[in-house]
Amino acid sequence: MAQVLEGYKVVDFTHVIAGPVATHYLRMHGADVIKIEPADGDTMRNYGADGPPQGSSKDMSPSFVSFNTGKRSVVLDLKDPAQKEAVLRLIAQADVVVENFRSGVMDRLGLGFEACKQVNPAIVYCSLSGFGQTGPLKNNPALDQIIQSMSGLMTLSGEQGSPDMRVGFPVADTFTGTVAAMAIVMSLLRREREGKGQYIDVAMLDAAMMMMVSVAGPYLVQGVKPRKTGNLGYSKSPVSDTFPTADGEFTLGITRQDQFEKMCGVLGREDLVADKRFTDKWARQRNGAALREQVIAAMASRSALELERLMNDAGLAAAAVRTLPEALAHPHFEHRQLTMPARLEGDRSEARVLGTGFLFAQDPAGVTSPAPRLGEHTREVLEELGFDPLQIDAIAGASEQHNH
Amino acid sequence: MAQVLEGYKVVDFTHVIAGPVATHYLRMHGADVIKIEPADGDTMRNYGADGPPQGSSKDMSPSFVSFNTGKRSVVLDLKDPAQKEAVLRLIAQADVVVENFRSGVMDRLGLGFEACKQVNPAIVYCSLSGFGQTGPLKNNPALDQIIQSMSGLMTLSGEQGSPDMRVGFPVADTFTGTVAAMAIVMSLLRREREGKGQYIDVAMLDAAMMMMVSVAGPYLVQGVKPRKTGNLGYSKSPVSDTFPTADGEFTLGITRQDQFEKMCGVLGREDLVADKRFTDKWARQRNGAALREQVIAAMASRSALELERLMNDAGLAAAAVRTLPEALAHPHFEHRQLTMPARLEGDRSEARVLGTGFLFAQDPAGVTSPAPRLGEHTREVLEELGFDPLQIDAIAGASEQHNH
Repeated sequence: MAQVLEGYKVVDFTHVIAGPVATHYLRMHGADVIKIEPADGDTMRNYGADGPPQGSSKDMSPSFVSFNTGKRSVVLDLKDPAQKEAVLRLIAQADVVVENFRSGVMDRLGLGFEACKQVNPAIVYCSLSGFGQTGPLKNNPALDQIIQSMSGLMTLSGEQGSPDMRVGFPVADTFTGTVAAMAIVMSLLRREREGKGQYIDVAMLDAAMMMMVSVAGPYLVQGVKPRKTGNLGYSKSPVSDTFPTADGEFTLGITRQDQFEKMCGVLGREDLVADKRFTDKWARQRNGAALREQVIAAMASRSALELERLMNDAGLAAAAVRTLPEALAHPHFEHRQLTMPARLEGDRSEARVLGTGFLFAQDPAGVTSPAPRLGEHTREVLEELGFDPLQIDAIAGASEQHNH
Repeated sequence: MAQVLEGYKVVDFTHVIAGPVATHYLRMHGADVIKIEPADGDTMRNYGADGPPQGSSKDMSPSFVSFNTGKRSVVLDLKDPAQKEAVLRLIAQADVVVENFRSGVMDRLGLGFEACKQVNPAIVYCSLSGFGQTGPLKNNPALDQIIQSMSGLMTLSGEQGSPDMRVGFPVADTFTGTVAAMAIVMSLLRREREGKGQYIDVAMLDAAMMMMVSVAGPYLVQGVKPRKTGNLGYSKSPVSDTFPTADGEFTLGITRQDQFEKMCGVLGREDLVADKRFTDKWARQRNGAALREQVIAAMASRSALELERLMNDAGLAAAAVRTLPEALAHPHFEHRQLTMPARLEGDRSEARVLGTGFLFAQDPAGVTSPAPRLGEHTREVLEELGFDPLQIDAIAGASEQHNH
């Protein structure tokens, strides 16, 4: 059988993170994603937070590989009329266009939604940007941390009174790419049912609000202002929190009465159940500091992993705090098809990439081709579009010359 | 015209956050989402972090309203044979089943994927859980903060050496609900094209890894270990960071040479461009502390909002750090169709709910019905299933008696 998006062709003008993450989902489920790059490539190709990538990793940074595996790379200059004509011919045969230039740039290039509709009336066209295609901020550039600043996200983590702090990785980028992918798939479904195209306007700032729906929602509904609560969880139960142990941090997720009673049993502190200060969840909330003190004392001589095992055996939500490498080393992941081998140059045989974070029983996520070298598929794609060898030389030659 | 998911019927057994967020996307785009609840309802109905909900807000907490608006509520006891038969009849006429019980629970109730396939061979069936349907952790319960602990997420935010800290809202829940919705829509597309159903296994732990692809990816590809960098952004450019100003925190997102030069111009510090320590992005990375000092001095007498305006006018990514209420008050949102009125009881006419975080030009997100009272649609749905009045009394009466 075929993957769900097999047969769909995506013309992908995106770069950096949010856009490429969106098309990563599409590629992993079978779409042909053709990445149109400028002569110097997606800037993420040479992303190197700790210095410039060297040797074989030039143009192929680990970040780039992580969300561009399986795509095809075509280098074309969108300002060159002949090369732009090739792009329009590609769009005429495609199902989806995705771009994340600043608002108005694609229109000025003659590659906006209206121009694409001219050559392909049922095109699904998705624009990703920081602030969207309407409103006073529409022309402002954005990065993940700008959205984290603008949206309120930076004011939500940490202890009360602590400095505002970003989430330590570009979560707004990833979330935005994820809702964009959903919107594109919805639009393909619409096209399948009704034959109609769609224009999709995805803004990182809007998406960040949706990501924070659990706090933005209650504020919109009833003016509930979010506040920093450190590691105390959404329930504000004092035993849904992170605690020190003999050897590391440990998180409990106890909200219901039956769970509280089991937890007291595991800690050998059944007396706490009868304690008037802790008699129900509202009492425990009122006397949170006192309860926390008791729990810390009861756990002080045990290790985080031992406590995790004991609590889990009792059917309780609990986990030692792990680093990301520790997490990925958990034997549980051997039973999840979370990652797949990434074909790379050299001998990095251990290299893997993430699929899509969800599993289909039939025809799951997967690709067999590697992350593309810059411009690796320019000639191949031009050939598929029916250009003859002389035309291909003229079009691809120009970009190759620029590139070498 | 019709919304993209109009005509699809979703039988929704989910509760709390991740599952209801998944079906929120489906409902907002036109699906009929029928929420099957126990007699005491989705626990989120009475979520009250600051004390028990009172009066008219009983069963209708702001959080519940935020991601259940427009759904229909049917109260049925899944352990009662006659009521379970009604559920199966509903599933026979539905397109999608979504559930987030612990692994194995739906099978034991006789409502697992195989049982549903018996009555509806093309059913799309999505299970959400903490750790998925396979692997040694599959039976463990989870909450958002347990996933934040297990996945490495808690070790990514904050300054180097600072205590591990959760993201201050249930981000793993929201992200999981979002990928689940995408997977469901993909499966509906598959069904439309091939007539086939699908089983979808969504785990919060897997989804969290995908959410962190920008750091988990480089680790999987090349062993790059993520580290805490405070408010320094993904690029590690010292001018992609948050700075103090005369009146508040302010974030810059400067990565390229041309942006750096413009920034120096805005700050009246063109001399920094010629400074050997800051001559290109690698030099600036090496001399980050010195550059930060210069930037702070240049900004000390200006306000965050003034700096935001000046930098944005120069085409640079920059933003004052805002709280969530400040963010939502920005006039920009008047031009985005991010929210819609939430119909509530009483006079809370200002109440709004978020749509889906992305905009369709045609047939966008929207619902006209309010969040459902517990069991509000039990009789209506039973009637639609063709039960006669006596049968409806027998089935609905049992749950209503229990409930009142």
